[in-house]
Amino acid sequence: MKYQMQLEFDGTDYAGWLYQPDRVTVQGTIQNMLSELCQEPIEVMGCSRTDSGVHAAEYYVHFETNQLQIPLDQCHRVFNSHLPRDIVVHSVSECAEDLHVLRSAKRKTYTYTILNQALSSVFERRFATHVTYPLDVDLMQQAANDLIGEHDFKSFCCEPERKQHHKRHIYSLEVKKSNHFIVIHVTANGFLYNMVRIIVGTLIEIGRGHLAKGSIPAILAAQNRAAAGPTAPPQGLCLKETDYED
Amino acid sequence: MKYQMQLEFDGTDYAGWLYQPDRVTVQGTIQNMLSELCQEPIEVMGCSRTDSGVHAAEYYVHFETNQLQIPLDQCHRVFNSHLPRDIVVHSVSECAEDLHVLRSAKRKTYTYTILNQALSSVFERRFATHVTYPLDVDLMQQAANDLIGEHDFKSFCCEPERKQHHKRHIYSLEVKKSNHFIVIHVTANGFLYNMVRIIVGTLIEIGRGHLAKGSIPAILAAQNRAAAGPTAPPQGLCLKETDYED
Repeated sequence: MKYQMQLEFDGTDYAGWLYQPDRVTVQGTIQNMLSELCQEPIEVMGCSRTDSGVHAAEYYVHFETNQLQIPLDQCHRVFNSHLPRDIVVHSVSECAEDLHVLRSAKRKTYTYTILNQALSSVFERRFATHVTYPLDVDLMQQAANDLIGEHDFKSFCCEPERKQHHKRHIYSLEVKKSNHFIVIHVTANGFLYNMVRIIVGTLIEIGRGHLAKGSIPAILAAQNRAAAGPTAPPQGLCLKETDYED
Repeated sequence: MKYQMQLEFDGTDYAGWLYQPDRVTVQGTIQNMLSELCQEPIEVMGCSRTDSGVHAAEYYVHFETNQLQIPLDQCHRVFNSHLPRDIVVHSVSECAEDLHVLRSAKRKTYTYTILNQALSSVFERRFATHVTYPLDVDLMQQAANDLIGEHDFKSFCCEPERKQHHKRHIYSLEVKKSNHFIVIHVTANGFLYNMVRIIVGTLIEIGRGHLAKGSIPAILAAQNRAAAGPTAPPQGLCLKETDYED
């Protein structure tokens, strides 16, 4: 039987999603829980390979087992009682044999949260990146507009050799200010390795005046990671939504 | 020279405010930082003896030293670079010799945040208490109104022998719902040990229908801790404001 599970996690204390034999990862933690409850080794496939410190508000996994003895509508409660408090399962359901949470995803939305003030905040430090210098949100949005659409994002990608092509389609990219926060929302048909964090790092450079707001077309055209800004830190990043519908 | 310092802290990973020789406490952590920077043992007095897991958004301390070699307007930055990320100093200033951050306080405001939904949340777990059963906010507010004013709060106090008298004046006590959150704001001229958490625990019992909304006068009159509800968990509690003006 194949199952799909929706969950959320605080990535602060994990070495990312992907299983590593000698590090605590989200995938490893969930696999251990399921393998123990089902009394057989279970591998879970996740919808995104989030880095260490990156969070997810809506994350999907699939896994297969014939040994799940718990009524489906009670699974999330039982699973949660066996998981640490920084991973919370929302729901578990049976799914189609051909569903693949990574490959079947049509669109994903990430948010990146910046706390833009002189002082850091103990209440925000896990889920926001602290930027002390003032950022011009209008400049950032104007630059962001040049990233919307289908482009080759090789300049906004670490380890580009991981993928054969680097074309992705950004459907929307919004930079919104609310009190001391700047939140960047980005929706695309897929993201390259570190793509959101490099986009944010580049927009921050533009917002503080270190890069011109018209720089984006030349950075895209360069197809070279060195042309873009730095990779923004992980803690501001959160996977918000994954769509499987066309 | 006497100094006053404003700060905030996330109490999750501390055994409370008060110094303990073999536990990590907020007071101990700040004293270590100051003693090292000033090269002499420094004792800090805090405005509230918060328990383990309780937070503060606006906390005041005072301390005395003649060895502070850092310009006052740069102290908070230097102190923050020597403190863990869950304590953030907002400002440091000279203060009057007779200021006492605990005894000179005229009013304090605490908030208590409840996440009231079936599922817990990885994003809220450090700063909100998760209550799964539905709570009736109107019943809670009606009961809260009976606590406003000057009363003997011995029933809402752990270890009443710590204090000679248990009269306190609650100026306001509001129960507000916002999406899945219920936030209780309480302002008083002072609070007994665990008073806010016992008030909240009692209001929760009323909100879920385990205690009648009209129970408060009898609980107050009993002057007995056993008459009130349970002590609510620490993580929802946050010291929001301390006023020193009449």
